[in-house]
Amino acid sequence: MSFSFDIEVTAGAARAGVFSTPHGVVETPAFMPVGTLATVKALDPDDLTQMGASMILGNAYHLHLRPGDDVVREMGGLHRFMRWDGPILTDSGGFQVFSLAQLRTIDEEGVEFQSHIDGSRRRFTPESVMQIERNLGADVIMQFDHVIPGQSDEASARDASERSIRWLARCLAEIQRLESTQPLEDPPREEFPGDNPRNHQALFPIVQGGIHAHLRREAAAEIRGMHDWAGFGIGGLSVGEEKDAMYEMIEVVDDVLPKTHPRYLMGVGFPEDLIEGIRRGVDLFDCVAPTRMGRNGSAFTRDGRLNIKRTEFRTDPKPLDPECDCSACTRFSRAYIRHLFVSDEILGLRLLSLHNVHFLLSLARAARQSIRNGDLEQWSRDWLARYRATSPLPV
Amino acid sequence: MSFSFDIEVTAGAARAGVFSTPHGVVETPAFMPVGTLATVKALDPDDLTQMGASMILGNAYHLHLRPGDDVVREMGGLHRFMRWDGPILTDSGGFQVFSLAQLRTIDEEGVEFQSHIDGSRRRFTPESVMQIERNLGADVIMQFDHVIPGQSDEASARDASERSIRWLARCLAEIQRLESTQPLEDPPREEFPGDNPRNHQALFPIVQGGIHAHLRREAAAEIRGMHDWAGFGIGGLSVGEEKDAMYEMIEVVDDVLPKTHPRYLMGVGFPEDLIEGIRRGVDLFDCVAPTRMGRNGSAFTRDGRLNIKRTEFRTDPKPLDPECDCSACTRFSRAYIRHLFVSDEILGLRLLSLHNVHFLLSLARAARQSIRNGDLEQWSRDWLARYRATSPLPV
Repeated sequence: MSFSFDIEVTAGAARAGVFSTPHGVVETPAFMPVGTLATVKALDPDDLTQMGASMILGNAYHLHLRPGDDVVREMGGLHRFMRWDGPILTDSGGFQVFSLAQLRTIDEEGVEFQSHIDGSRRRFTPESVMQIERNLGADVIMQFDHVIPGQSDEASARDASERSIRWLARCLAEIQRLESTQPLEDPPREEFPGDNPRNHQALFPIVQGGIHAHLRREAAAEIRGMHDWAGFGIGGLSVGEEKDAMYEMIEVVDDVLPKTHPRYLMGVGFPEDLIEGIRRGVDLFDCVAPTRMGRNGSAFTRDGRLNIKRTEFRTDPKPLDPECDCSACTRFSRAYIRHLFVSDEILGLRLLSLHNVHFLLSLARAARQSIRNGDLEQWSRDWLARYRATSPLPV
Repeated sequence: MSFSFDIEVTAGAARAGVFSTPHGVVETPAFMPVGTLATVKALDPDDLTQMGASMILGNAYHLHLRPGDDVVREMGGLHRFMRWDGPILTDSGGFQVFSLAQLRTIDEEGVEFQSHIDGSRRRFTPESVMQIERNLGADVIMQFDHVIPGQSDEASARDASERSIRWLARCLAEIQRLESTQPLEDPPREEFPGDNPRNHQALFPIVQGGIHAHLRREAAAEIRGMHDWAGFGIGGLSVGEEKDAMYEMIEVVDDVLPKTHPRYLMGVGFPEDLIEGIRRGVDLFDCVAPTRMGRNGSAFTRDGRLNIKRTEFRTDPKPLDPECDCSACTRFSRAYIRHLFVSDEILGLRLLSLHNVHFLLSLARAARQSIRNGDLEQWSRDWLARYRATSPLPV
């Protein structure tokens, strides 16, 4: 078996587990840095290794457009192309087709849309997306789904959820066909005389249903019955709905999804959401916020967010977060990083992105430790209280 | 003595030496990466350490404007601020005042100009620039000089050269005063109960004279007689004159400057100029080209320059330069780096800057080795012949 999930300890709905993939293990709960275009923006793969990242993301939509999934396949797959030999998950592009692309028309067959890069006409179907994700060769591949706005009414949400489930069946059939006809080339098959464990990709279904609890439950139950999945995505959240609705949608599927399998809350990863998700049984998270915020000069700290461009940091000798052990905080002052931002220096983008990604990786590790220690509830309360206190930063 | 220069081997005018500074030694000939604003653009100080950089540059003009030399001093000096504990040299701003600043008026006292950042009125004098360079606290500080265009006539060149020499005398008097009244704080003085070797900065004079051999010789002789300098700058070259004129200007001062001291050819550092300079007795070089070209997608290779954005590299699995051992070439394909550039990804800027800086550092090391091996002339000819051959890159 190329994929497995072993739960070490639980604490209420939360769990500390180990998710095994062909490219290594992921200790969960885990934050997965997002490498949309085969690079976690502003960072080097060595930075990610140093800060203990295990699984990272790529994106089928973006990589299909640039450089082309055919190019990535020709270069030996995404792991080799971007030099990340750890686990990789690719998102299917369902979200991007609905958020970035122009002039999309959707029917039962798939989605036709215009590329946001050059306006070219493209068509995604469950089958074509499986071919893209096969070409990329990630360990975990997400199904192609129909994503809708967070506030959608029940009829729209039901329609999209049911279509996503029909598309899931087509994704499953197609990836099974591709696995037997298109071996992955990372590493070359001759290294494995028998079955090559790296030939296998785990297709994750995505539970949709908007903010309608019964739709979420129905979708989870139907998906669960279809196949012995290696894990489950929870999608269509953090797309404009209220935070409480998001937390509720995680709770309502907790009992319907098998407790034995990893759950991935897609696109969610602010510190407070990470903690609230973990408390509700989520194992995997991803979010572009740490790198996007980093490029905008905003840093996570244990005392809330900090805008490094502010004048008050002009001669501040302290690190971004005095309790952080990332390679930005152990070397550089706020004064220096502020100077880099004020002067538009690239190193500033890297240092803040690095710090923010490290912050979320560390936060997931700390949550995992608190589950193992049996004090998740107390730890969560204390952590969130300090983070949410809007008092000025300690001097 | 805080500064010394030991020549191990000579080969014609060329020499392999060791320049010792309060923050460590520089094996010469050496290329010095340029960290204009207290960062070598797109690189991390750890990158520079890994690729064996020894001495790097900062710039008095730029750092005076942003973040302010007073800020740098308050943060413990440039070494601490930017986390570079190796040797640093600061340029005086003479070149920037004449190339970047607006509306400058020059008189015997100094130069009044408008900041290129915010248009604010500023005045640089030899004394004020020494204060700036004292605040920055680099190991080697360049005199404030009057820089003129490369093609200037003799009268202008003589006027600027003679003014630069009068300003040099004022710089020397001022830095001697500052050394005795304003101790450097890196490291704090209490670590050195006696004389703190890190309190000393070496003021380098700059030989000017445009492209007029006799002016160059006169300037070199007069400067040499003024003081026991730790080293000599050769300035006002690579500013629009012909290459042959530049090489000639290096040759004409070779016998006038003491053979026992390091020579720094300011602002020069393309591969061919590095080699031609070394053959003529230059020990230190700097140039923004490797990082600027890197940000534009252009890479040095042993077979000439390469524009990574070209379509031919779309699926090229080779590294930028197959014989390079930098951390870009040992990990990534041209196809991947091209993808990063086409997609405007920051990692691309870093990888190409890193490769180009490493290329020049390695080139200077190879030249040094060939001096020690006694085959500099043959090595130079072979290296330049291959580099200048305009044949397509080998497949």
